[in-house]
Amino acid sequence: MNANEKFIAAKAHVDEAAIAPLPNSRKIYVEGSRPDIRVPMREISQADTPTAFGGEKNPPIFVYDTSGLYTDPSAKIDIRSGLPALRQQWIEERGDTEILADLSSEFGRQRAGDKSLDELRFPDLHRHPRRAKAGANVSQMHYARRGIITPEMEYVAIRENMNRRAYVETLRGTGPTGEKMAKLLTRQHPGQHFGASIPEEITPEFVRSEVARGRAIIPNNINHPESEPMIIGRNFLVKINANIGNSALGSSISEEVDKMTWSIRWGGDTVMDLSTGKNIHETREWIIRNSPVPIGTVPIYQALEKVNGKAEDLTWEIFRDTLIEQAEQGVDYFTIHAGVLLRYVPMTANRMTGIVSRGGSIMAKWCLAHHKESFLYTHFEDICEIMKAYDVAFSLGDGLRPGSIYDANDDAQLGELKTLGELTDIAWKHDVQTIIEGPGHVPMHLIKENMDLQLEHCKEAPFYTLGPLTTDIAPGYDHITSGIGAAQIGWYGTAMLCYVTPKEHLGLPDKNDVKEGIITYKLAAHAADLAKGHPGAQIRDNALSKARFEFRWEDQFNLGLDPDKAKSFHDETLPKESAKVAHFCSMCGPHFCSMKITQDVRDFAAKEGLKEEEALAKGMEVKSVEFVKAGAEVYKKI
Amino acid sequence: MNANEKFIAAKAHVDEAAIAPLPNSRKIYVEGSRPDIRVPMREISQADTPTAFGGEKNPPIFVYDTSGLYTDPSAKIDIRSGLPALRQQWIEERGDTEILADLSSEFGRQRAGDKSLDELRFPDLHRHPRRAKAGANVSQMHYARRGIITPEMEYVAIRENMNRRAYVETLRGTGPTGEKMAKLLTRQHPGQHFGASIPEEITPEFVRSEVARGRAIIPNNINHPESEPMIIGRNFLVKINANIGNSALGSSISEEVDKMTWSIRWGGDTVMDLSTGKNIHETREWIIRNSPVPIGTVPIYQALEKVNGKAEDLTWEIFRDTLIEQAEQGVDYFTIHAGVLLRYVPMTANRMTGIVSRGGSIMAKWCLAHHKESFLYTHFEDICEIMKAYDVAFSLGDGLRPGSIYDANDDAQLGELKTLGELTDIAWKHDVQTIIEGPGHVPMHLIKENMDLQLEHCKEAPFYTLGPLTTDIAPGYDHITSGIGAAQIGWYGTAMLCYVTPKEHLGLPDKNDVKEGIITYKLAAHAADLAKGHPGAQIRDNALSKARFEFRWEDQFNLGLDPDKAKSFHDETLPKESAKVAHFCSMCGPHFCSMKITQDVRDFAAKEGLKEEEALAKGMEVKSVEFVKAGAEVYKKI
Repeated sequence: MNANEKFIAAKAHVDEAAIAPLPNSRKIYVEGSRPDIRVPMREISQADTPTAFGGEKNPPIFVYDTSGLYTDPSAKIDIRSGLPALRQQWIEERGDTEILADLSSEFGRQRAGDKSLDELRFPDLHRHPRRAKAGANVSQMHYARRGIITPEMEYVAIRENMNRRAYVETLRGTGPTGEKMAKLLTRQHPGQHFGASIPEEITPEFVRSEVARGRAIIPNNINHPESEPMIIGRNFLVKINANIGNSALGSSISEEVDKMTWSIRWGGDTVMDLSTGKNIHETREWIIRNSPVPIGTVPIYQALEKVNGKAEDLTWEIFRDTLIEQAEQGVDYFTIHAGVLLRYVPMTANRMTGIVSRGGSIMAKWCLAHHKESFLYTHFEDICEIMKAYDVAFSLGDGLRPGSIYDANDDAQLGELKTLGELTDIAWKHDVQTIIEGPGHVPMHLIKENMDLQLEHCKEAPFYTLGPLTTDIAPGYDHITSGIGAAQIGWYGTAMLCYVTPKEHLGLPDKNDVKEGIITYKLAAHAADLAKGHPGAQIRDNALSKARFEFRWEDQFNLGLDPDKAKSFHDETLPKESAKVAHFCSMCGPHFCSMKITQDVRDFAAKEGLKEEEALAKGMEVKSVEFVKAGAEVYKKI
Repeated sequence: MNANEKFIAAKAHVDEAAIAPLPNSRKIYVEGSRPDIRVPMREISQADTPTAFGGEKNPPIFVYDTSGLYTDPSAKIDIRSGLPALRQQWIEERGDTEILADLSSEFGRQRAGDKSLDELRFPDLHRHPRRAKAGANVSQMHYARRGIITPEMEYVAIRENMNRRAYVETLRGTGPTGEKMAKLLTRQHPGQHFGASIPEEITPEFVRSEVARGRAIIPNNINHPESEPMIIGRNFLVKINANIGNSALGSSISEEVDKMTWSIRWGGDTVMDLSTGKNIHETREWIIRNSPVPIGTVPIYQALEKVNGKAEDLTWEIFRDTLIEQAEQGVDYFTIHAGVLLRYVPMTANRMTGIVSRGGSIMAKWCLAHHKESFLYTHFEDICEIMKAYDVAFSLGDGLRPGSIYDANDDAQLGELKTLGELTDIAWKHDVQTIIEGPGHVPMHLIKENMDLQLEHCKEAPFYTLGPLTTDIAPGYDHITSGIGAAQIGWYGTAMLCYVTPKEHLGLPDKNDVKEGIITYKLAAHAADLAKGHPGAQIRDNALSKARFEFRWEDQFNLGLDPDKAKSFHDETLPKESAKVAHFCSMCGPHFCSMKITQDVRDFAAKEGLKEEEALAKGMEVKSVEFVKAGAEVYKKI
């Protein structure tokens, strides 16, 4: 559908590309302590090792799966109905919420009553909004601090372990070489963790304790029961967020839903809907109802639309109504730029690029116009009351983040960070889950200071960073300039990386850009997991490298982050099916394959009944003559 | 031309895309101490700042230019004639070389005499090969150690400074705000240099001293007088190399020449011709004659072709003849895997991916077959004699580099590195310029160990690394997994980064892949320069960010590494010319541009005759009312 075509709810359908099965992959569910805790994973099966290389079985590996029911062929997908409410039972069981007769937000009611919107409205929500009972606090942090392990906590514990134990056991069971295989394929470099404390196995109790102390959050609005719980914290796998959303200048509801399903297919752990155009409310409803991942927003964007773009006309009342409106739709975390204080604004006057955060500049303008601290700051405790009534998490926005290398780590930025730390204390006082947003444009050598100060000021509340971009000079490639910074800050302790697409600074990302951004950030997050020494992180690298070494081309593609692209690149030069089992590739051709040569060397040693290292250690004069006599050709026709 | 089409020398022509002018760019030459030292730079002109933002002049900036005469519209380009021999006079003046009557290499003479090759042979070299007079040493290191500053050294000194002084002076001269502009646009974060010692300004004497102590090289074969001198060393700008070359399975001579001109257009500092297919000798001739950048090769590849791919049949005599053949063509540096010792080979037996270096595996196979150390090692001093007779530099190959995360920093790799350090001592004894090749696949936290050990074992001989790739799991995106590692190792002290393209592990790169690899590595190298605090590195970032903040869209595109892509991305959503002067873009639309809001804030303060910071510090109750009354709209129609 193109942006100018009118969106009609009745005709809405899922993007076919989002539900196509991934090659050699199967959706599995790992069951928890009760039958309705069913944690999805993607199982990738592998071919046996070719006989020439040993012939062993290669058990399937399990990878973290953010794609929701879309990749489950047994699921019936109709985006007009949305996803099933898998958490509803858990929420109800707790008995601390109530169903409201109607929306509490004035704006929400107004939109619901507007007949002209019927045609594009999400049609099928028969659910009423839910809210904490008077005086109750329904945040996961609140439960955690009272010692309660929720089903959500157990769910994320299972999810984070990625079925590693089952994989290791299967490896051990693969015949006489099983123990060796298990050792080989699960070996991992000890990491450098910079103070992270990641246990060998994630237990529900560990999840609880991390949430309780604020070092991790489970974004989980009670009005988004469709979501599959996930956790954001430095002692868990590094997560990534994908930004989507239309603007006044382009894109439609269906395009945004497609971007969401496309994002999660490739690994987006959360999605932020940053829409600023028309029908923000309705667009969001479609996204949330169909999203298995937490959805974040920046409520001030919509509030600004409500005052026709005049920042100075914003009021606490309008903002408050917007928060409630969105909380009752099910937004899981809100970016709130409450740290933009009046005294920091002048510090941006000598910057190269001033204030580049949209939310930050709106609030700065408001502060200047009224010459007082923003209602986000003065009403912060009121906001906490709303957050805990729905379990919306704070993502404390860095409204003064640097927009250029020049402005990196300046007083405005670091001043605001300190204020975000103070606000974290207030949020925690209310048991409201909180993460902290970070830069921006930062040269490599100043990245660690950002992380260290964040850990200090915000007491290990999860850091959630945009990039950072390590240079300003590559428009069109800012997914890469920022991926470099993202990998590093993830290693240093950032819990979630907000992706940047190739269109950054230039335009709105389309679906291709979204995928490019996602894969770039998945690999950056994975590089960070490896460098931190996250237990089991290296399993996928080991499996892929083994497949590569054994010329299992299809497995090499399928174990990678983007099987489609890997296969299409390979096929550009060697399109025939037979090339997928060839023991060489187009890069070097048959004579020059180093992996093949290595294998020849090993084969030779094995034929002599010796381990290669022993053979060599003893001295091999005689054997080497035989090797030559045997006509040790590098390339044997297959 | 496609790979299957027959290449005919008489019809060869330059790739039109390689000579198209870059937008708003002009080739300039900075003259040195003599009129034939003319150092090329690219001058990028900029528009004036829009009146609303202050209206000042923005002087052109100068950037390092690797593209040679191809981007000089006054040059006559005919690839059948090759480039002019700009260094010939300097070489002749030194009086230490002689012109040979014929090629010294048997193979070279044989190819020259083969009439069947006439049709595809480079037609227009009327020059005879040149060699050092008996007993002479013509390496730049040799001159440097005798205290001689060659024209080549002066050339690179001028080149490295990138005309910074002229830029600063022009800035200062731009009217009353000149001093402020100069301060703003040249300000830079102090870097973290890890022991590098980069002076404020590069002088010819500094170049000489760095070359003399082996901490930098100027790859400069006397038979490649067409080359524009450049320097590789940790105290200079980080350089990048692009690999090109055909294989038995694809690509033609013209495609490879096109890849070379395409590589240098986008910033390749050197190019390695890794051809392994047919007509290697003739392909190389075309490349060298048309290349303004140093060309590297891996001579063992061609030697292996000469023995029909049978590694065990390789001999010192064949290899020696290949070195001389290539040295007399003008290859500037040779990758030589002389560190693959017999005792290291068994250490690879328990690796995940064995030996992945082509040269390394060839030599390992030879060593096993003969059970003795390779002729590269035993004849290393003989090789030095050849190198110094032509000024070919060593690139000591890491034949045992890790091909997977699993194998990173293992005993085989680090053992070989130590041997490379010993070989460096021998090369230096002969005054032969030397760089050291590095990994490979390495998780982030093990990268620094590579750098530190290299500095220690190889006494600061320049490090030249492939990536490193920081994960194995992203085939199709390995330019990015490796760009992450490259930026880091560049920061830590690596002098030149060997690019990786998106096709890595999957196929031969085409022109698009070459460009994607180059730009990725240019930005990684630049990120490293910024992090090291290389003087002047931030000038381009500052200029681009100022353009961005002032909505000078065209300048933002043109100051970036890839103006074409930046413009096309912008145009996808806002194709009209008027949008290039719009004070917003498609990402946020007119209401939401934070940069515009920032400017509004500054404008307001300026209108009040106050600096913004003063205005705020005083308290602005009254003024803020005026601000609101004035109807401070975020978006004013242009």
